[in-house]
Amino acid sequence: MTAAGGITASVNGDRLWRSLMDMAEIGATAGGGVGRIALTDLDKAGRDLFVRWCKDAGLAVRIDQMGNIIGRRAGADDGTPPVVTGSHLDSQPLGGKFDGAYGVLAGLEVVRALNDAGVTTRAPLEIVNWTDEEGVRFAAGVVASGVYAGRFDLGYGRNLPDREGTTTLGRELARIGYDGEAPCGGYPISAFFEAHIEQGPILERDGAVIGAVLGAQGQRCYAVTVTGEEGHAGTLPMTLRRDAMVGAARMIDGLNRLAFEFDPMPVLTTGYLQVRPNSRNTVPGRVTFSIDVRHPDNGMLADICRRATALCGAVAEDTGLLVDVTESSARDSIAFDPGCIDAVRTAAQRLGLACRDIHSGAGHDACNLARIAPTGMIFVPCKDGISHNERETAAPGDLAAGCQVLLEAMVARAGIA
Amino acid sequence: MTAAGGITASVNGDRLWRSLMDMAEIGATAGGGVGRIALTDLDKAGRDLFVRWCKDAGLAVRIDQMGNIIGRRAGADDGTPPVVTGSHLDSQPLGGKFDGAYGVLAGLEVVRALNDAGVTTRAPLEIVNWTDEEGVRFAAGVVASGVYAGRFDLGYGRNLPDREGTTTLGRELARIGYDGEAPCGGYPISAFFEAHIEQGPILERDGAVIGAVLGAQGQRCYAVTVTGEEGHAGTLPMTLRRDAMVGAARMIDGLNRLAFEFDPMPVLTTGYLQVRPNSRNTVPGRVTFSIDVRHPDNGMLADICRRATALCGAVAEDTGLLVDVTESSARDSIAFDPGCIDAVRTAAQRLGLACRDIHSGAGHDACNLARIAPTGMIFVPCKDGISHNERETAAPGDLAAGCQVLLEAMVARAGIA
Repeated sequence: MTAAGGITASVNGDRLWRSLMDMAEIGATAGGGVGRIALTDLDKAGRDLFVRWCKDAGLAVRIDQMGNIIGRRAGADDGTPPVVTGSHLDSQPLGGKFDGAYGVLAGLEVVRALNDAGVTTRAPLEIVNWTDEEGVRFAAGVVASGVYAGRFDLGYGRNLPDREGTTTLGRELARIGYDGEAPCGGYPISAFFEAHIEQGPILERDGAVIGAVLGAQGQRCYAVTVTGEEGHAGTLPMTLRRDAMVGAARMIDGLNRLAFEFDPMPVLTTGYLQVRPNSRNTVPGRVTFSIDVRHPDNGMLADICRRATALCGAVAEDTGLLVDVTESSARDSIAFDPGCIDAVRTAAQRLGLACRDIHSGAGHDACNLARIAPTGMIFVPCKDGISHNERETAAPGDLAAGCQVLLEAMVARAGIA
Repeated sequence: MTAAGGITASVNGDRLWRSLMDMAEIGATAGGGVGRIALTDLDKAGRDLFVRWCKDAGLAVRIDQMGNIIGRRAGADDGTPPVVTGSHLDSQPLGGKFDGAYGVLAGLEVVRALNDAGVTTRAPLEIVNWTDEEGVRFAAGVVASGVYAGRFDLGYGRNLPDREGTTTLGRELARIGYDGEAPCGGYPISAFFEAHIEQGPILERDGAVIGAVLGAQGQRCYAVTVTGEEGHAGTLPMTLRRDAMVGAARMIDGLNRLAFEFDPMPVLTTGYLQVRPNSRNTVPGRVTFSIDVRHPDNGMLADICRRATALCGAVAEDTGLLVDVTESSARDSIAFDPGCIDAVRTAAQRLGLACRDIHSGAGHDACNLARIAPTGMIFVPCKDGISHNERETAAPGDLAAGCQVLLEAMVARAGIA
């Protein structure tokens, strides 16, 4: 990858790939993926490797009170707020090699490439590994970047219990040696960029290498409980049934059809469903299921949710069932900074990389950072859109391209000395 | 309840109710039901009580090689094949006081009433507690009556493993002291009657006290596996999804609508459903669910099943999914003996009891016995049709009425000395 325009540093795609593969050995799974859950011994091993690499690249490393690892490269004008990049080294239990790790190691490669080229930026650069993005082991995800951005209290973050209730995030930070003393956030930053695999199929489908991320979709989640009456599958006539499974099926079908009525279309998913008593020969008395709806436009999202709730109510009324639709979480859509988005588009254009605008369907640490700083994200394709899966993979050339865009966008914001 | 016609014996409804309540104390649950799973220590306690009551009533008790308990009342012509009645004392884990126990204790009350009246029948009478009707703990239900009726080998029945695979039915029989030496079946019987709560709402709805059971519905069960592809709920566009949950929902809705197209209507149930990976933010890649279809007419049942299978295939094709529909069990409908059915109708009529013909939706030991002897069943209402449930209940007067019908039908078949 050759730098163009006024920037003379080029990332080394092979070195980036080697670092990704070296990191992926820590927590490697039998199925070819990675299981490196936050604040486990494997997470500690991954962190130790990253810290070593940061120091080898001349970065000053500090650990903050949420265990975030920050490698700082001094700027010529070191008092100006830093340009920051980063993502997370923790993974899903059966995750892939790229979700998170790519954004951290792409940041490191930016530094290595600037070192190779002898480029000093005006503003300092910081490369961050955010603690526990995935939220697998503790009660919430993106929590450490949330504390950093003032969305959560430090106490809330450090006292988060694990699923078994036997320890807390803070205690586990201390156990693995990453309970740092640096303040978590609270200082100005010039801009934040996060490079990430798309985790969806859109770039690949459109033949784009770079996604200029406009923002993150709004998301609302509902827990739906459909209540009918249990009965014997052999003896209760159809006409007398109040079958919660049939009602739930009709709702799920209807909700899916509802999504197709909107333009632009939301994503609407029932990923979780539980039947009670879940016995072949008993008419189900209760079914609970999830609805997850996401849309870039908050107004349209609210409209979809109103219609979804009404649809569940109408089906329940038709089928003699009771339904309760409770909102379990809500997050408005986030628009990233136009300047940061432009920096990504401009870099891609300069490099001759096919680029398209895209919304992030998933949540990311960048969504928290957008609260306190101009923020942008760079997506690169992942094969078949598969993520949160051991089979997750991405092309080395695409990863290098995204890394070069990251370099150019960061340098454009930081300035050259 | 006063006997009419040529029969002078009357059952004692209070005594029957007391026996039911005494038996229900063994394995009584907090919710007011009974949990007396086959071949547990509680089952042993229930059996011991029944054996004591049989002996108190002058019956000769034998235990056969499947642990069936048979109490025999000699006939005047004791060499003629016996008229047999019975049901089961084992229950669901959270079952009711009447499912099974009623049929056993109604048989005992018949004997007590005949004793009180000093009536000797020509043919001998036998009252049976069939081992493990419910099939909760071991791999199959109605297995001991199945061995008795020659449907299963003795070895198959005795070697049935429990769900944990740590013991067998035969070993557990020995453990609780009911591994008998009497041959299991293999001798002629004149007729078999089984009294049972309906386990459905039809008698109650129609104001009938007695159901003259015409036979048992045919039943086919299917395991359906719908396979799509997992994806991220936030990033995979609707148009690119192969969502196994949406496909399964559409199938279940369609199957329910299909049932309503037939006259007489089958019962068709999806009682079991499992989603993989069953995570709120993942588009389900696989859903498995059960179909249970029952109908009195074997030809129509086959037709419904053909259309159900085709429907699943058509939905899968429309939605880009794969579907596998595998038959997991099949049982043809059984017609009970016209003479036995008439004996039930006649007794009800003589007693002035509202009676209607009915099909059994559930399987019963009587369905096995119908293979080797003229067989009939007597249903009585249970409140709201609720069974396999701690709330299962029945009216003492209805239970006494059914018991008197049983007495008269048995005496009519056995003759009076």
